Amino acid sequence: MQKELSVAVIGATGAVGTEIVELIERRGWQLKHLLLYGSSRSAGSEIKFKNSSITVKALEMANYEAVDIALFAADSSIAKEWSPNFIETGAFVVDNSSAFRMDRTVPLIIPEINLSAVTSGTRLVANPNCCTIIMLMVVAPLRKFGKIKRIIVSTYQSASGAGRDAMNELELSTKAAVSGQEYQHKVLPHPYAFNLFSHNTPIGEDGYNGEESKVIQETKKILDDPDILVNPTCIRVPVMRAHSESITVEFEGNAPSVAEVQQALSEFPGVKVVDDREANYFPMPIDASGQDDVLVGRIRQDISNPSAISLFCSGDQLLKGAALNAVQIAEAVFGIKLELSPAMSG
Amino acid sequence: MQKELSVAVIGATGAVGTEIVELIERRGWQLKHLLLYGSSRSAGSEIKFKNSSITVKALEMANYEAVDIALFAADSSIAKEWSPNFIETGAFVVDNSSAFRMDRTVPLIIPEINLSAVTSGTRLVANPNCCTIIMLMVVAPLRKFGKIKRIIVSTYQSASGAGRDAMNELELSTKAAVSGQEYQHKVLPHPYAFNLFSHNTPIGEDGYNGEESKVIQETKKILDDPDILVNPTCIRVPVMRAHSESITVEFEGNAPSVAEVQQALSEFPGVKVVDDREANYFPMPIDASGQDDVLVGRIRQDISNPSAISLFCSGDQLLKGAALNAVQIAEAVFGIKLELSPAMSG
Repeated sequence: MQKELSVAVIGATGAVGTEIVELIERRGWQLKHLLLYGSSRSAGSEIKFKNSSITVKALEMANYEAVDIALFAADSSIAKEWSPNFIETGAFVVDNSSAFRMDRTVPLIIPEINLSAVTSGTRLVANPNCCTIIMLMVVAPLRKFGKIKRIIVSTYQSASGAGRDAMNELELSTKAAVSGQEYQHKVLPHPYAFNLFSHNTPIGEDGYNGEESKVIQETKKILDDPDILVNPTCIRVPVMRAHSESITVEFEGNAPSVAEVQQALSEFPGVKVVDDREANYFPMPIDASGQDDVLVGRIRQDISNPSAISLFCSGDQLLKGAALNAVQIAEAVFGIKLELSPAMSG
Repeated sequence: MQKELSVAVIGATGAVGTEIVELIERRGWQLKHLLLYGSSRSAGSEIKFKNSSITVKALEMANYEAVDIALFAADSSIAKEWSPNFIETGAFVVDNSSAFRMDRTVPLIIPEINLSAVTSGTRLVANPNCCTIIMLMVVAPLRKFGKIKRIIVSTYQSASGAGRDAMNELELSTKAAVSGQEYQHKVLPHPYAFNLFSHNTPIGEDGYNGEESKVIQETKKILDDPDILVNPTCIRVPVMRAHSESITVEFEGNAPSVAEVQQALSEFPGVKVVDDREANYFPMPIDASGQDDVLVGRIRQDISNPSAISLFCSGDQLLKGAALNAVQIAEAVFGIKLELSPAMSG
């Protein structure tokens, strides 16, 4: 029999926190307690769980002692301030922010790829950036064909990566646009309806923005390969909750065949090959939304380089890009067996 | 004094044809006649021109003899069937379809780049694919820094490239989505509201779709460089009328500096550098829409390759991507001097 766990979700009312709570229910975790924490602003709100609801408390009221697993879905500053309290009283923490990702003492984990970086002494694991997770889910399986030298990636990122307010802004500004109304954007730095723009994280001296730098650095850490080269261009598109990515993977030697890549990706857990050339059917955000799997297709030999493969993927930013990966980390570490059918839609 | 011209626009009621008529007015062409032709379905409709309106006639009623310049903005089949009639009676034809683009006897022209491919005997010029034009406007100026070996491009293509019906479908399906209504897509092969998808042209044996193959082949022809390698991924996004492209350009030798690229692009006619790292302001479709210039920014050394530069551009698909380029070809060949301020918005 599995041990019943006490689980805390920090940032439970946010876009990712809400998904974590839903995943815990859907995946049938055996719980002693589910404790939901938020800002003082969201304290007091009720979140549906199973046939009941749970009241969100302010983080200041947290009962650390009771917690086996603390899943942080809040800002970096919150994670830095509050996660030590949970760890000191014996909890295992998974943090979805960027606070600890590049800390050498903190494993940065995609369970299908580098779970071995978690040791028996690990008390804190960082959840990678959403673009990094979705990209590596379809790139890491290709390492069996030889050393990967370089990845060139252009993203088509959804609103959800900027949080629930950004999703609302996409909806409201689009509603205004189609009815000829003015809309003053408040959340994102540019008009979002029928528009797209470079990711709004600050640009470094090298010309890459914060989001792109995360993809570059996190890829090296997760693949444990300081030499792997990544050239990302991160673009926000008017899509609700799934990121898509156009990826070219260059190998040191010759590239594998299309059939070999399709086979390797179809065998990889958490990846679903959607690559029907005949029907012209490939990964799309509407199909990836609400799905645990990252969809991948358009798999082809790069016509410009015999050592490269190009492909296109879509993955739910809130699920595998954030909440699901965090939940899977906890499941792997605690040996949680799923009690329910894991897939919502696939 | 300029000669007054008789001009015919074929496909005058379509998305591109309408823009051609507007451009002829805005750019102050001195006209003897403006003849507008369309399908029998659109015959009889009135198109505004200056302070009057012109009745669209069925192409079957065309008076070829009267025409100096015939601008075709119709399907390939129409271009193949009808353009010989205009040419035989002395007209100069610019065709916006793909009918003649890869015909070795027909120049494929972006006036800023390869006007020299037009000779005194040229009676027919092909207007390139919209993605090709917008990409080459920001890539061709970089040839001064050395031979370009390879271009990797991921597109963010607007509805307008699929015509007016696709633009309407984007609007109607989005309107339905934001009000919780069902919408059955009729024009594009997939739901378009808050979605994106691989370009729906058929996939060849090499895994590239028709749109991507055009970009590959047309680039070689326009740059007169059979060896240049292009790896495109063409994606349709829910944007109305400007295409964006994420581009990496690999040189045979070392790449130029960012400052050199910015300088070269800012000096190139038809290109506007929008590259404010401090303000995080870069090319966006809403800024490119209605603009003659292709906007370019995010100019940076490719962090994964010292021989490469990455950049991001947006250009109005209906203007420089189609109608404007066709009109500019005719202006260059006929030495048409612009009488009015050419820019609508910049």
